[in-house]
Order: sequence, then C-alpha cells, then structure tokens
Amino acid sequence: MPTQFDPASGTRDFLAREFETRERAFGIIRSVFARYGFEPLDTPAFERLDVLMGKYGEDGDKLIFKILRRGEHEGTGEADLALRYDLTVPLARVAAAYGSQLPVPYKRYAIGPVWRADRPGKGRYREFTQCDLDTLGSTSMLADAEVISAVHDALAGVGIAGFRFLLNSRRVLAGLLEVFDVPAELGPGVLITLDKLDKLTPAEVTAELTGRGLPEARAADLVSAMTAPDAAERIRKALTSSEEGSAGLDEVDSVLNLLAGQVPEERVVFTPRMVRGLSYYTGPIWEVSAEGLSSSIASGGRYDHLIEQLGGPDVPATGGSLGIERILLLLADEEEGHSRLDVAVTVMGQQYAAHSFAFAAAARSTGLRASVYLGGSGKLGRQLKWASDQGARWALIYGGTEEEAGTVTVRDMNTGEQTAVPAGDLAGYLARLAAEG
Amino acid sequence: MPTQFDPASGTRDFLAREFETRERAFGIIRSVFARYGFEPLDTPAFERLDVLMGKYGEDGDKLIFKILRRGEHEGTGEADLALRYDLTVPLARVAAAYGSQLPVPYKRYAIGPVWRADRPGKGRYREFTQCDLDTLGSTSMLADAEVISAVHDALAGVGIAGFRFLLNSRRVLAGLLEVFDVPAELGPGVLITLDKLDKLTPAEVTAELTGRGLPEARAADLVSAMTAPDAAERIRKALTSSEEGSAGLDEVDSVLNLLAGQVPEERVVFTPRMVRGLSYYTGPIWEVSAEGLSSSIASGGRYDHLIEQLGGPDVPATGGSLGIERILLLLADEEEGHSRLDVAVTVMGQQYAAHSFAFAAAARSTGLRASVYLGGSGKLGRQLKWASDQGARWALIYGGTEEEAGTVTVRDMNTGEQTAVPAGDLAGYLARLAAEG
Repeated sequence: MPTQFDPASGTRDFLAREFETRERAFGIIRSVFARYGFEPLDTPAFERLDVLMGKYGEDGDKLIFKILRRGEHEGTGEADLALRYDLTVPLARVAAAYGSQLPVPYKRYAIGPVWRADRPGKGRYREFTQCDLDTLGSTSMLADAEVISAVHDALAGVGIAGFRFLLNSRRVLAGLLEVFDVPAELGPGVLITLDKLDKLTPAEVTAELTGRGLPEARAADLVSAMTAPDAAERIRKALTSSEEGSAGLDEVDSVLNLLAGQVPEERVVFTPRMVRGLSYYTGPIWEVSAEGLSSSIASGGRYDHLIEQLGGPDVPATGGSLGIERILLLLADEEEGHSRLDVAVTVMGQQYAAHSFAFAAAARSTGLRASVYLGGSGKLGRQLKWASDQGARWALIYGGTEEEAGTVTVRDMNTGEQTAVPAGDLAGYLARLAAEG
Repeated sequence: MPTQFDPASGTRDFLAREFETRERAFGIIRSVFARYGFEPLDTPAFERLDVLMGKYGEDGDKLIFKILRRGEHEGTGEADLALRYDLTVPLARVAAAYGSQLPVPYKRYAIGPVWRADRPGKGRYREFTQCDLDTLGSTSMLADAEVISAVHDALAGVGIAGFRFLLNSRRVLAGLLEVFDVPAELGPGVLITLDKLDKLTPAEVTAELTGRGLPEARAADLVSAMTAPDAAERIRKALTSSEEGSAGLDEVDSVLNLLAGQVPEERVVFTPRMVRGLSYYTGPIWEVSAEGLSSSIASGGRYDHLIEQLGGPDVPATGGSLGIERILLLLADEEEGHSRLDVAVTVMGQQYAAHSFAFAAAARSTGLRASVYLGGSGKLGRQLKWASDQGARWALIYGGTEEEAGTVTVRDMNTGEQTAVPAGDLAGYLARLAAEG
C-alpha cells in the first residue's frame, strides 16, 4: 500500500546502495563513451511545450508531463512547458542552437532522466534514465560501427554477459519488399508484421500478412525465406536482383567487416528479419538481445532525416540507446553488507571528543572514510555496535588509558584484535593497514 | 535575443566543457562527503503537490512549478504533481518513509537540480543545482562540527581560496535579545534588521530598529555592541547574565574547539552579528563568505524541529548547503583548448578503413581516447586539421606505404614529428608515449 510518504506514483527514491550501484554503471558507461571521443551533453529537465508536442505521435503526446503556467496565468489551466520525453528531441534542438560551435561530426552522449505519464507497472516507471550516444554529421559506416563497438564495450564493461547484436539494414528490408513484389502501400504494415517473427509462429505471421492483403503464396514464401535455418544466405542471394537490397547488404557487410576483430564474431549476427519498429531508420539497424530477456537491452541505427524532422538541422545521423533500467536489473545485486565507513571513531566522553574528532580527520587524510560517533551513549559496547552497523573495518578507541599512554587503540572489527598505536603515528599505521587490503 | 532553439527561459544547456567542469567539482565534493561517512540520496524530480505546498511560505508556494493532471483530467487545469523546490522537503519525506531502514544517525548528501519559477536574471536560474549534506538524529556538537569540516574540505578540494566561516548560534542571539531587553514580540524583526549590518551603516540599522519600536538608546547600544572592533569579547561578557546566551556560547566554543587543528584557525570566526535569515535554526549557525563576493557560498546550521514541520519524523538535525552555482562561477575557467581525443586516426581510403578502425581500438585498449575520422574527405591535410580541432596529441596514418612496410605512422600533433611504428606494436608504443606524459 502506498503511504503519504512514498514517492509519487511511478517514481523511485534511490537510497545509498542502489544509488551507488547505478552510479558505478553510469561511470563505466561514461568512461567507455569518452574513450571513443563522444562528449557529454546535459539539457534541462523541461522544454517549451512547442518543442516537444507533435514529435512523438498522438500516443506519445498524451504521455508528456505538462507544466502549468504560473502567476496570473495559472488560472487559465494552460501549460507552457513540459518535462522532456526523451533525449533525442533536446539533441535536435541543441544541434540547431549551437550548430557552428559544435564539432563536425558531433559525437555526443547523454545519460539522464526522462519523464513519461505511462501507467506505472513492474519495471515501468514515469521517471527513468535514458542513455544515448549519437553521431551527427557523418554518412560513413565507420560511424555506425563505432556506435556499435562503443555500446558493446559499455555492456561488457558494466558486466553483462551473454548478449548478441542483431544487425540488419532498412535498405535490406526495402530490397526484400521489392524482391517479393510487396506493393509499396503495404510495405510499412508488412514490416510491422514481420517484426513479430520472434513472438508469433511462422504460420501466424503468414496469416497476418495475408490479412494485410498479401497473396497467400507470396506471404508464405517471404516468411519461409526469413525463418529458414539458412535465411541469411537465401536472402543474400535473393537480394542480388535489387539495387536497394544490394546497397543494404553492402552496409551490413561494411559494419561486420569493421567490427571483425574488435567484437567477438559470434556477438554480431546479420538478422534479416530484425525490423525495429520505428519508421525513421534509414540504414543499418541493430538491437542487442540478452540471454533470458525477451526484450532488447540496447538498440539503434542510422536515421538520416530524423534530426531535421524533430526541428534540427538536416544532418545524417546514427546512434544507439542503452536500456539502462533493464541493464541495471540484469546486474547482480551488490553484496549484502553495505559499508559506509572504513574507520569508526568512538567518543569515550566529552573530554575526549576533540581528540576523537582529530583522529577521524587523521584517518581521512589517508583517503579512508571515517567519522566520529554522534550518538548520546558513553558505553563502548553500544558504540562498537554502531561501528559494526556502519560496516567499519576498524574502530578507534581513546579514553583515560590511552590518554596516559599517548596511544590510540585500533580495533580490528572482524577479529576483535586491538593494537595500541602511538597517537602521532595513527595516520601512517592506518595507511599501512589499508595498503595491506 | 532568444531564438526558438534556446533552452526554456532560466534553464541552460551544458555542452561538453561546462559539463565536465561541473562534473569534476561534483565528483570532488561527493568524494569528500563520502570520506566523512555521508551517504548519497537521490529523490524524484517531482513530488505530489501536497508534499510541497505550504512548506516554503506564501512567496515560496508561488515559485513552485506545478504539473498538469493528465488524460481526462487535463481539461480541469488542475495540478497534482510539482517539481521539487529544494532537497530538504524530499529528505523529510524520505526520513518518514524509510525510518527504520535508515542508519542512526542518518548522514546523507544530495546533489541535484531543483526548480523555482523565479524571474530569471544574471546568475539566477529556474533550474539550478543544490548540494546539501545533513545529519539527522544527533544532538551532539560533533555533528555540527563534522558538517562544517566536510564543507571546508569540499570548498578547499574544488579549489576555492580565501574563504571564511562566520559562526554563531541562534541561542547567542536569543541571549542578546534577552540582555538588551528586547520585547519578545519584537525579537524576530530585530534579528532581521541586525542581519543587515553587513549591508547598511550602523546608523541606518539603528534607525530601522527604532522604527521597529526599540527605544533609540537601546537600539544604539545593541548596534554598538555588535559592531565594535571587540564585539565578540563584549558580547561574551554581556551574555554571562543570560542562561540561554551562555548555552549558545558553549555551543560556539564546542564547535570552535573541535575544529581547532582540523581547519585553519583564521577560517572560522565567531561572528555574533551573523543572523541567517531563516527562522527555523535552533543552535549553531554558520555561513561562508568568499573574497570578492557579497553573498555567501555556503551556509547551514542546526534545525532541530524543521524535519517534523516539513512532514518528517521529530528528529534533531544539522546540515549545510553549498551554493554550488556561485562556487562554479568562482572557479577558474578551464584552459582554452578543449581536448576530445588523445589519438585521432586518419582513414586514407575505404580499403584501409578496417585497419584504421582496429588501430583506434588498439589505442583505446591502453586507456587513451581514440576515434577514426568519420568525414568524407580522403585528403591527409583535411584529416590532420580535424585531428588538431579535436585536440588530439597524436594522429595515426595508414595508407599504401604503411601497408607495404607493415607499420603505422604516428604523428606528434605538437611537433609534426612522424614515427613509423610496427603495426603489431602500436598499443605498446602509444602506452609508452602516454606514460611519458
């Protein structure tokens, strides 16, 4: 049951452990993308309403969170701003706004929250993180291969195993429609149906194609060509008679050739029946399937006209997106114990507080995480319990005995072993312990 | 003039260089806070409207960005959600929601954007970053000193020089009002006026106090006590007759005593006339003034009842906030040249593309940032211009000559010197160059 203290429906609070798991993954991804020469971009959470509306189709428009006008205009009930729905429309706006200041090509990545007023459900949020990288201004297949290679390294970097890139080209699909004599007006619908080959049986797909108006024999031929064990080879042969199809195959082969040696061969597979739902793709398309998941964990492709359609300049573009929320679910949970501190410093009485405070500072000076006990109990047992709850490796104790001897007691929280260390040597001693691991 | 491509009024796009400057500062601050045992917290961009309304006073409520209801309710013009206005109300909600799962005390930091519908102006934004750290659940002055020490280390860490903590206690101020016989009902107004001593002349402040109903002689005495060169000493003496004032002085002295040795002495100054505008403080208060700036770059204090007032549990609390946008303005701009790549790999023809792609991967395998040329020109001069624009230290060249010799040409972009390196040794060669610096 949600309470009044829960975050708003479809949103999440990230406490320390989850925050750190997420940040660790983002950090690895950022550093992989930077190593490929992609640069970061951060745009505001909200855009003017007109920048967003009409860019995501009718269904998309309904999912946009709109912000009420303010002050005297609040009463109108009108909106003038809206929370960003993805990272691509802001990219198009930035490309239009800063054109000449941006490098050519403009290779950028962006990792940040987007907001969609979807019905919240298991794994479906109203605030979730997107992770995009795109190259604007290059028609070269090198740009497509670079995006795929960077996504590969990012997935491997965060620790995903058992994933595969399914590679195709929209021009291969266009060639197929041509070779199988699919009337132009049926094309988009036929592709949408073919995209279901991983969920429906061949017979079901054939029936749906027939329903769309394709002669039954031709529908059966098409489905058979795409689902045969040697589908890739059969389709390669069939496409020799199509100029567009041959050009698409050249794209696929260029990308495969560039990736050979950089990405393990079995991880990139030419998959003619992989369609990608979105109609804006114009060249190579790809998605990443992971073992045990029915939906892809990353996808992308070339979209040479989209940036202009979204209000940006007319530039060729290729890019990809990591399904970062799904990827985070795949990553193994962190170990149970959560450590907040390396060194927990007890306070054995008000008269020793300043010493304890200074010992914590000495520990921090060696790079260790350290804090004094902030509670009200003067009891050692209670304070050691706190040290243990913090996941501390060592506790420091300083009271009358230590004051007389000029030492600090360093307690190993795992073994309970205690060592008297000269107060002046504390930092060096802790540094040596830390270096030993 | 704003264009249709500018970000919404009062918001900013952060392109690579600015993003990296900000991230570098955030990274340092995060690591300092973590070293003190503070843990991260991230809450959603929006909260339910009722969580935020009525928490910031009437003026604050007007500055809240409200989100329109959706679907069939959109027509009502009503809002049900709102963008967060600060990081403290979400903290109160989290403390209420996860109470027993949180450590005691709960030491957390948060760095993230907040949104306020203020009139945008120079240095005043509608989307800006806040950076807070707070300890919930400790009444100890150790907690107050720890926050101040962490803020000190964070400011020093990001490279701020010439800053000072002005330290006081609300209880010192309460004692002062008592000693100077200020009627209870005039107290809050008198403090607001005294807070102007750094902007108005003593005579102006005296006049304003008189206007508030304080007898002129008493107003003059009070102002004189607070502005005298030996104000701190005079006020210490005056406060001996007030129980509340003495308790406040004890707080100040405890904090000063704990910080001695950890923070350079001249950097924390007991400043009796420092009031802090906000009425919710209950104990030590402080702000950080930086050379050449009239407003503070960080501030904080103890606020033992606020979390409950904001809808959270009844816990003592102390914390601070870094004025991170102001701090970023103080930091020296990064050097002019922006480097996106360490190694720029030319592509001397389609037949060499796969080799160039592989050389970029080899460079990346050593940790260097590397990319192939993605443009359409086959001319070396043009490609070296691109390499230079990227700020690359080295360019790699591979064409017919290199293919025959089995080498790659490594060009030092500063000196123009070129070295033929055996293709198989490229990674090792670049790693050695990089290690030389």
